[in-house]
Amino acid sequence: MELKENERIDDLQYKDLKIIQNKTGFCFGIDAVLLANFAKNMKKKDVVVDLCTGNGVIAILLAGKTDAKKIYGVEIQKEVAEMAKRSVELNNIKDRVTILNKNLLDLKEEIPSATVDTITVNPPYMKAGSGIVNEGNSLTVARHEISCTLEDVIRESARMLKFNGEFFMVHKPERLVEIFCLMRKYKIEPKRMRFVQPSVDKQANIVLIEGAKSAGEFLKVENTLCVYKESGEYTDEIYEIYEMEK
Amino acid sequence: MELKENERIDDLQYKDLKIIQNKTGFCFGIDAVLLANFAKNMKKKDVVVDLCTGNGVIAILLAGKTDAKKIYGVEIQKEVAEMAKRSVELNNIKDRVTILNKNLLDLKEEIPSATVDTITVNPPYMKAGSGIVNEGNSLTVARHEISCTLEDVIRESARMLKFNGEFFMVHKPERLVEIFCLMRKYKIEPKRMRFVQPSVDKQANIVLIEGAKSAGEFLKVENTLCVYKESGEYTDEIYEIYEMEK
Repeated sequence: MELKENERIDDLQYKDLKIIQNKTGFCFGIDAVLLANFAKNMKKKDVVVDLCTGNGVIAILLAGKTDAKKIYGVEIQKEVAEMAKRSVELNNIKDRVTILNKNLLDLKEEIPSATVDTITVNPPYMKAGSGIVNEGNSLTVARHEISCTLEDVIRESARMLKFNGEFFMVHKPERLVEIFCLMRKYKIEPKRMRFVQPSVDKQANIVLIEGAKSAGEFLKVENTLCVYKESGEYTDEIYEIYEMEK
Repeated sequence: MELKENERIDDLQYKDLKIIQNKTGFCFGIDAVLLANFAKNMKKKDVVVDLCTGNGVIAILLAGKTDAKKIYGVEIQKEVAEMAKRSVELNNIKDRVTILNKNLLDLKEEIPSATVDTITVNPPYMKAGSGIVNEGNSLTVARHEISCTLEDVIRESARMLKFNGEFFMVHKPERLVEIFCLMRKYKIEPKRMRFVQPSVDKQANIVLIEGAKSAGEFLKVENTLCVYKESGEYTDEIYEIYEMEK
C-alpha cells in the first residue's frame, strides 16, 4: 500500500484492523471508538450507513465488531474519502464496506428511503461560525457544520432508516437539547444515552445517543463512563472497549 | 404543636429545621434534598416559588439554605397544604414562607406574570394512566400527573418567571426528552444538568435540571453524582449535601 505525503498507517488494535490517517488532517479519537462500541449490536443481514465517515474509522471498526452485511461510509471531502477507500482495501473488506464520496444530502439514488437498518454518525461538533474557522481546510470541515448541519444529519437519517431502524450518534453534551428536539422533530425517538467523563469529578465532554425510528417514548440513561481513574490509569471499562491488556 | 393521626415530626438535619409528615402519605425523599441543594444560589431580594410543594420540604429547606426574601409553596391538596402550613409555623419562618393551597393553574392573582426570580419543582414523575393509579388517594396525586401535567408545570413556570429567571426541577431520566422539548417550547432554556446514580455501575434514576427564561443555548452537564460507594457507604458528596458527619 503506497502512502501519500503526511499519511501514516495506524493499528486499530482490534482484529488486526488498520487505518490510514493524514497527520495534518482529522485523526480519529476516543469518540469514534466509543461510538463503534456503543453501536455494535447489529445483525447479519443489516445494512449500515456511517455518515461523516471521515477516514472511515467507524465503518472499518463496525466491519470488525459486527456481522453487518453491508456498511456504507459517506464522506463529502474527496481526498478524505479516497484515503478511506484505501483503508478499506488495506483491510480486505471491500465486499462489506463501500465508501461513497457524496454529500449526505445527495444520497437518494444510492440509498433509497426506508432501506437502512442502522445509522452511525460522528458529525462535526461545532456550529459554523463558532470557534476558529478556516473554510478551505479539511480539519475545519470535519469539526464545523460547514458542509452539513445537525438538522441535515438527523433529517437525512430519518429518511434512510427503516421503521424501528436504529440511529447512533456521538456528540457534545452542550448540544443535547438541540439534539433531542431535532430527533423528535424527525421521529427518531431517543431511547438510550450515555455520558462520558474524563474522570469521576470532571463534567461530561462526550455523549452517546441511541434513537429508534418511530419508537415510543422512554429514555434509558446508562451509568456514566469515566475514562480515567483517580490514579490517571484507564478505567477497566476503557481497557475492555479498547480490548487492551492491563 | 398538635399532630393529627398518622403524623410525625421529622428532623431535616439542617439548622434544626423540622417537618411534619403523614406516615400514610408521600414522605420526602433524597430527590427533594438534592433539588434544594442544586438550587441554593439565591439572592437576598429573590422571590421563589416551589410548585407541587407537598409537605413543604423544599420550601422549608430553601428558607434555611438561602437568603431568599419570599418563598411560596404551592400545593393543590388541602390536607397536605394544611400540614405544610403547620410545618412553617413549627419552624418560625412564616414571615418568609407562605403555603398557598391552590391549583398551579390558578395562580395569576397571587403570583402575577414575570415577577418570580426562581422556581423549584419536584413534580409527579409518572404520567396519569401509567402504573397503579388510585385517583382518590393523596399519594397517587403526588406521584401521578392527575392534577397537573409536566406541560402545565413548565408553561405556568414560564409565565411566572422574570426574564433570565431560574427554573430548577428534579425528575426521572426516562422523561428527559419530553422535559427538554417542553422547556424549549415555553422558552425556559436548559442550562445545567446533573444525573444521579445509586452507585457507579448503576443507571441514573434521578435528573436535576436548571433552566433560565429566554437564555441562550448551551447545556453544562455536571459530573454524575453517585449516592453510594462500592462499600455501601454514602459518597463524600452525599455526606456534604446532608451536612452529616462521616
